[in-house]
Amino acid sequence: MCRWLAYSGSPVRIEDLLYRPQHSLIDQSLHSQLGAETTNGDGFGIGWYGLGEAPGVFHSVEPAWNDRNLRELSAQIESPLVFAHIRASSGSPIQQTNCHPFRYGKWLWMHNGVIREFRTVKRDLVLAVDPSLFPFIEGSTDSEVFFYLALSLGLEHDPPAAVEGAVGLIEAIGRHHGVEHPMQMTVATTDGTRVWAFRYSSEGQSRSLFFSTPLSKLLPKHPELAHLSELSDESRLIVSEPVRDLPDAWNEVPESSWGVVQPGEDELHQFAPRAPSRPTSVPAGV
Amino acid sequence: MCRWLAYSGSPVRIEDLLYRPQHSLIDQSLHSQLGAETTNGDGFGIGWYGLGEAPGVFHSVEPAWNDRNLRELSAQIESPLVFAHIRASSGSPIQQTNCHPFRYGKWLWMHNGVIREFRTVKRDLVLAVDPSLFPFIEGSTDSEVFFYLALSLGLEHDPPAAVEGAVGLIEAIGRHHGVEHPMQMTVATTDGTRVWAFRYSSEGQSRSLFFSTPLSKLLPKHPELAHLSELSDESRLIVSEPVRDLPDAWNEVPESSWGVVQPGEDELHQFAPRAPSRPTSVPAGV
Amino acid sequence: MCRWLAYSGSPVRIEDLLYRPQHSLIDQSLHSQLGAETTNGDGFGIGWYGLGEAPGVFHSVEPAWNDRNLRELSAQIESPLVFAHIRASSGSPIQQTNCHPFRYGKWLWMHNGVIREFRTVKRDLVLAVDPSLFPFIEGSTDSEVFFYLALSLGLEHDPPAAVEGAVGLIEAIGRHHGVEHPMQMTVATTDGTRVWAFRYSSEGQSRSLFFSTPLSKLLPKHPELAHLSELSDESRLIVSEPVRDLPDAWNEVPESSWGVVQPGEDELHQFAPRAPSRPTSVPAGV
Amino acid sequence: MCRWLAYSGSPVRIEDLLYRPQHSLIDQSLHSQLGAETTNGDGFGIGWYGLGEAPGVFHSVEPAWNDRNLRELSAQIESPLVFAHIRASSGSPIQQTNCHPFRYGKWLWMHNGVIREFRTVKRDLVLAVDPSLFPFIEGSTDSEVFFYLALSLGLEHDPPAAVEGAVGLIEAIGRHHGVEHPMQMTVATTDGTRVWAFRYSSEGQSRSLFFSTPLSKLLPKHPELAHLSELSDESRLIVSEPVRDLPDAWNEVPESSWGVVQPGEDELHQFAPRAPSRPTSVPAGV
Repeated sequence: MCRWLAYSGSPVRIEDLLYRPQHSLIDQSLHSQLGAETTNGDGFGIGWYGLGEAPGVFHSVEPAWNDRNLRELSAQIESPLVFAHIRASSGSPIQQTNCHPFRYGKWLWMHNGVIREFRTVKRDLVLAVDPSLFPFIEGSTDSEVFFYLALSLGLEHDPPAAVEGAVGLIEAIGRHHGVEHPMQMTVATTDGTRVWAFRYSSEGQSRSLFFSTPLSKLLPKHPELAHLSELSDESRLIVSEPVRDLPDAWNEVPESSWGVVQPGEDELHQFAPRAPSRPTSVPAGV
Repeated sequence: MCRWLAYSGSPVRIEDLLYRPQHSLIDQSLHSQLGAETTNGDGFGIGWYGLGEAPGVFHSVEPAWNDRNLRELSAQIESPLVFAHIRASSGSPIQQTNCHPFRYGKWLWMHNGVIREFRTVKRDLVLAVDPSLFPFIEGSTDSEVFFYLALSLGLEHDPPAAVEGAVGLIEAIGRHHGVEHPMQMTVATTDGTRVWAFRYSSEGQSRSLFFSTPLSKLLPKHPELAHLSELSDESRLIVSEPVRDLPDAWNEVPESSWGVVQPGEDELHQFAPRAPSRPTSVPAGV
Repeated sequence: MCRWLAYSGSPVRIEDLLYRPQHSLIDQSLHSQLGAETTNGDGFGIGWYGLGEAPGVFHSVEPAWNDRNLRELSAQIESPLVFAHIRASSGSPIQQTNCHPFRYGKWLWMHNGVIREFRTVKRDLVLAVDPSLFPFIEGSTDSEVFFYLALSLGLEHDPPAAVEGAVGLIEAIGRHHGVEHPMQMTVATTDGTRVWAFRYSSEGQSRSLFFSTPLSKLLPKHPELAHLSELSDESRLIVSEPVRDLPDAWNEVPESSWGVVQPGEDELHQFAPRAPSRPTSVPAGV
Repeated sequence: MCRWLAYSGSPVRIEDLLYRPQHSLIDQSLHSQLGAETTNGDGFGIGWYGLGEAPGVFHSVEPAWNDRNLRELSAQIESPLVFAHIRASSGSPIQQTNCHPFRYGKWLWMHNGVIREFRTVKRDLVLAVDPSLFPFIEGSTDSEVFFYLALSLGLEHDPPAAVEGAVGLIEAIGRHHGVEHPMQMTVATTDGTRVWAFRYSSEGQSRSLFFSTPLSKLLPKHPELAHLSELSDESRLIVSEPVRDLPDAWNEVPESSWGVVQPGEDELHQFAPRAPSRPTSVPAGV
């Protein structure tokens, strides 16, 4: 069920994020240790901020470990904010429009998890997407529809509230269709400045999620990480599973939480889905 | 805007349909003479009936002229009923789920043309698809939604009525959104026994469509076609543009018509879209 | 380092060979138990005999578990002789021309293993390919060069002798370049009538290889296999690893052996590489 | 037979080179006016200099007009030296390893044209490649072998002499095999600082090639090009066919010429293939 990585901080070469670490994301595409699947070979994607306000994206249906173009780009692009995702499909076809991260304007979104019984609930969920946003849905994944529900509920203005509302809606619609545990997720989303991450599942056993220890705390204890000393203390990684075997470096995001990496103090809060105000037999719009 | 070919009759090697003729469909992928585009390189697909009731399909995003697998399959498969389509995209992504022919159960469907302003009307059209059929929509083309509207309106029972209803609905919804000429089409659909073809456009200038002259009429005048003499007189081709320069062999399907190739007498009739019975501000379901 | 399967016998639907068994080849692409890698996601290919003398081939760079076209073809094609191969690359690029089985005329060839230090020995090996055959080499794998060496040494007339000669040559050239154990292989090759299989490595620890027990011996003991009773007693599978957990059904091919599945009695013999007659500083041609 | 574009000068966004002009390279992939084929849909590639000494490359088998990743990268990467190539295959397979530009170390190479009867002469040409360079050949095109012959003959030290020697060798070997006009080419090659371009054919009728007029001469006469005024006067385009309909802007490279774009004065010289010193029955090495 996918693995992802979000980086925010001093500009780094994308290659250093994807390939260099001991248990890099590329390594996780073949040998994931904490994911639902060991192999995540159903396509991959990266998004990064650089020229202009909107991020660039690169999506491929090839397994990440094979893709030469990814290696090439990664070596040539430096960015202060990078999203990367390797996919293990939960049923929808393998095609570029089904690769994460999804993009809308200057926003990126990635998801590890599933909306259960998606075939059954899809029509109701899609109807709940704001009509003005509906034409932007390009693929057939649950993750993309989830994104557009969050956008419909105000992601661009208040991401945590929007995601709480989207999950509340998904759970309500799911339960209306007899699905016991509709939602399983870790999600990352960004506007190019701040990065929000979420960890939640209806069943209370969510996919793994970690954020890195600030370098100012880590470097004094680990001289072997000296090569990271040029990075600012703002530099942070959020990952599905640690890319390096160094327990000090990783902090698990608690169940039912959301956090934000931003200039200055980062934050961590409880995540509580908010049920829709209208009855769920009629999908709620904006 | 695509080219397609439908064959029905004695079993033939698919290769003989796709590659052999002077101006074969593969040739039309590079040098179409009658299409809206000369190049149709945005993917292709074939469907054929053989083992079992449901047809096999093969879809690829590679341009047809390049695809070695297509050449290989075509040489190894014989079939009495074959659909083949080469695509020039009208905007939606190039991916296997956007290749024709589309399949539902034992039915195949292909379309040359466009639903105009599709981004604007898509939500209303998709809502008009029967909820039980909605989960089967895999791609993002207008052609596939058109297919599912026809299925929702009874394609499996009365194809001409279903297509007339679907076009009527598309035109009503289109005009509701200010689209002057919503529909442009030639369509072929089949259940594995009979092949229906349609030619219609809101503006009355439709994409080209031809059906072949029965061999019993053609062979006496054209000894050079002797190699076709083993084919039954039921054998018929329906094509977007002639695959061979032989005027006797091709008969244009008139504007606003539908025809059916079937055991025994084939038929040709007028095609008249049937407006939906309900007002178009609310999309009509089944 | 790849897994393969060869079937010879009564015509069967390719789908039944690839997808149906408990631990099918498609399952082995994700969860190989006996291979050098658990994942074999670097492309796949099938070859089968049907219409005409030459076999058809289908190659794809997508992981086998994802490929819809493979599923479709497999359901529609019946064949009495099928080769199938899933690839884990030993370094050469992932492209269709590097997928097995390789084809020359009516011959197919597949290989699990490696020619060690291939980059170092490649030029000498390629020079040893008969000049008339050289232009047919399309890809960049060791396996394909191995095939063309065998063809150069008379594969079409005496496969075991040709393969013994090719391996002898590869070992001589390898040792000339300081490679201790040049050859690791299981190989299958066929002319459409008989299937030869080989198991050998310079180090005497070869990739796994099994052939199936004749049905006349197996069916009496295993009523649960009754659905196979329509298959002739000639029907045989040769596999890198068993596709079903049934110890009676599988017989390991011994180290340094070759066998042939053919009408009538099958055979099993010792395999002994034959060093080239000329000194190895000059590559030996035919 | 392909179209290419080389840019050298002030850093520009790759998107501005590939997509913006009136008759951009992407436009030429569908509607080439001066090439041997109007459609160049058999893959494409770009190479660009940025981080580090070696250039990055991006190759794809999709037609350039379809490829979203190319659009994305192009919008996000600025470079002072860019090679771009769209391919119409002369027979070899469509795969990433057969896309231009080819790269060796810090060198890039692209070719429009053909080595005639390549299947016949390939073995002799490949043997003439220096053994230390032979393992770097990854694909199966004539263009790549041509590159490695030039490298074998000293491209890294004296490109014009090396290319003259390579062409002389190709012509000698070709004529040895009865090929009347072995060579057809325009070539561009670069070390990341200077760009050499070549135009030559054995028959004296070579593929089209143009270089742009220096901006200091062009801008005074064409105020509509004011947006280019920030570019240095060193900025130059070399193209298979003009990307903009502005006769002043383009200067045809004469038949049998080579030129170099470099800091300071550019140069234009005669190109004269230099026959190998050894007889051609034995391929000449370095």
